[in-house]
Amino acid sequence: MERINWISDIIVVVSPENIETMKTIIEKYGHKRVTVVKGGITRHRSIFNGLKVFAEDEFSCHLLQKPEVVIIHDAVRPFVEEDIVSKVVMAAKEHGAAGAIRPLVSTVIASAADGCLDHSLERARYRASEMPQAFLFDIIYEAYQQCTDYDLDYGTECLHLALKYCKTNAKLVEGTADLWKVTYKRDLYAAESIIKDNLSQQVCVITNVKETLGQVGFLLPESLKSQIKVEAISISLSKNDSRLQNIISEQCYNFVCINDKRCAIQETQELVDMLEKSNIPLLYPVVLILVHLDSSENNSFSIGMEDLTTIKKFARETKKKNILVYGLLIQHKDPLLLQETVNSAAALIMALIKDRSPELIGQLLVA
Amino acid sequence: MERINWISDIIVVVSPENIETMKTIIEKYGHKRVTVVKGGITRHRSIFNGLKVFAEDEFSCHLLQKPEVVIIHDAVRPFVEEDIVSKVVMAAKEHGAAGAIRPLVSTVIASAADGCLDHSLERARYRASEMPQAFLFDIIYEAYQQCTDYDLDYGTECLHLALKYCKTNAKLVEGTADLWKVTYKRDLYAAESIIKDNLSQQVCVITNVKETLGQVGFLLPESLKSQIKVEAISISLSKNDSRLQNIISEQCYNFVCINDKRCAIQETQELVDMLEKSNIPLLYPVVLILVHLDSSENNSFSIGMEDLTTIKKFARETKKKNILVYGLLIQHKDPLLLQETVNSAAALIMALIKDRSPELIGQLLVA
Repeated sequence: MERINWISDIIVVVSPENIETMKTIIEKYGHKRVTVVKGGITRHRSIFNGLKVFAEDEFSCHLLQKPEVVIIHDAVRPFVEEDIVSKVVMAAKEHGAAGAIRPLVSTVIASAADGCLDHSLERARYRASEMPQAFLFDIIYEAYQQCTDYDLDYGTECLHLALKYCKTNAKLVEGTADLWKVTYKRDLYAAESIIKDNLSQQVCVITNVKETLGQVGFLLPESLKSQIKVEAISISLSKNDSRLQNIISEQCYNFVCINDKRCAIQETQELVDMLEKSNIPLLYPVVLILVHLDSSENNSFSIGMEDLTTIKKFARETKKKNILVYGLLIQHKDPLLLQETVNSAAALIMALIKDRSPELIGQLLVA
Repeated sequence: MERINWISDIIVVVSPENIETMKTIIEKYGHKRVTVVKGGITRHRSIFNGLKVFAEDEFSCHLLQKPEVVIIHDAVRPFVEEDIVSKVVMAAKEHGAAGAIRPLVSTVIASAADGCLDHSLERARYRASEMPQAFLFDIIYEAYQQCTDYDLDYGTECLHLALKYCKTNAKLVEGTADLWKVTYKRDLYAAESIIKDNLSQQVCVITNVKETLGQVGFLLPESLKSQIKVEAISISLSKNDSRLQNIISEQCYNFVCINDKRCAIQETQELVDMLEKSNIPLLYPVVLILVHLDSSENNSFSIGMEDLTTIKKFARETKKKNILVYGLLIQHKDPLLLQETVNSAAALIMALIKDRSPELIGQLLVA
């Protein structure tokens, strides 16, 4: 809601024991338009408390300006898009009330007193009432003032109150599947996967301008392109580059740095500093993969423990900033196998980006 | 359904274009009681086709014996437990029909012709009708024979047909949350996470009987125990051990082998062979983590590329058998840091078990 700039105030209604936690969250993420209000013992009583902030002095240190339209939403529907919020608000302006609906996934039935089927509803005629809903403020506030204690204690549907007490038939707006309610443990799993999916849409591949990187620096972004949107830039990280700044400010959450030095910690630190300043890692972890190239002819080539210790230590430090660092070694002794090795590196990079595993930070994978 | 031994026949109704795929699946997993039947163009027509196998010669090469009770279930509800199937069947025996129900997650509303709210249903009075459902065969078959083309084309609810055409009020049985319908992409994510969760309940830690392993062989299982059920056994893999056989046959999907040799491929192959014979990796991937200990005093210790190549090659081979092999190196030069190193190894093991990433096979992680 903070991201939608035409919303002027945001009231978060929270149970008394969680108010301090909520205030900490609001401060951490720098939310500016949020007022926290104490919840009631039922859904309707909580919503009523939220509405009172605009109408009754006692509920807020500073009375907020009464809005024309108020949106009511559930925090358990975190994937709501601006588009549906906007549609519901426009419909509420015209009809006085509006709410998002979805097709029913299951048939709805009524049971008789003996626990047997009384009748089933024809699925096509009914809809699931979802959130967000929006109302002319005067209508919904009037409805809450008029409604009975029974409504406040046992009801759940705001559209019903607007209809019953203000004779307002809400406009129903077809919503999208992402309005679903995060209810069960499986929904938390789904939410986590959706967020990880959203974070895995784009990767920025940074190559240090060196001739020796030539082939891999070209082949690796190409191989990644079949799976993800790739921004490939060739710069020196020690110089402030505006293209890189742009990519960061466009909310890119994945970076691959290709170097010919084994542990280019110094250069990488510059990128970490830029990311930290950008606030990008505040909400979600950023993935940063350090790719080291090795083209030594020596068959007895080996990874030194010192390198491993260096990257591990670095990764532990950057994790505190919510940046997950992994190492990836690309060997390209045999030019005939180069494409294959690069493809295998791209597969490892995609796995690291998609999994975002905090346990695997500081490990050095080998392609 | 195959796992429930009191079910005598299983009819899988499949759209014509997927019949061959389904037959391949049935053969692959060795299902014995399954008959595949061609689906119709609607849900009800498909169910009717399934029922006809027990009553009409033309629908099956061999007429199956007519059952007393028939269970109807959706393939999109794969997490159904035997307990609820059993409850629904018992209720159907007594009442003629029965079905699982769940509380409504959203309020259900009826819309008027103008797209506005007509009325909302009191959520507490209604239930979502889920699957499985069960019926006395004669009742549901009679209902399908009697019902109209309109029912067959537009209806979705079997309980409704039993009520309408056979005056049978189905008994409603409260179901569990795992009856949910895998409908949207997010449900596939949730299903994947639930399966991975189920596979991450138990790990078998195998130590090769050697004095040098002593401390880690004891500390590692202890550290894992705070996060997962651990079966620790100390055996030589080259000998056929009945405890290991028991653990495998109890569907353990995670194995950790601790060795002091760097790449104990030979011994591990014995375990891979045992797993392959057990059919355990048929349905889900098995995770096999090879833990190598290194206690060399030499500071210039390094991982040879040869070792990496060996484990990678081995992992690629075993992946074909649906066994995911990862390497993990535990360094314990400094006795003071041993507990910390072991804890970090346990965290890596848990991450590998939970993620089951096919891309990271053959990698050597360092604790």
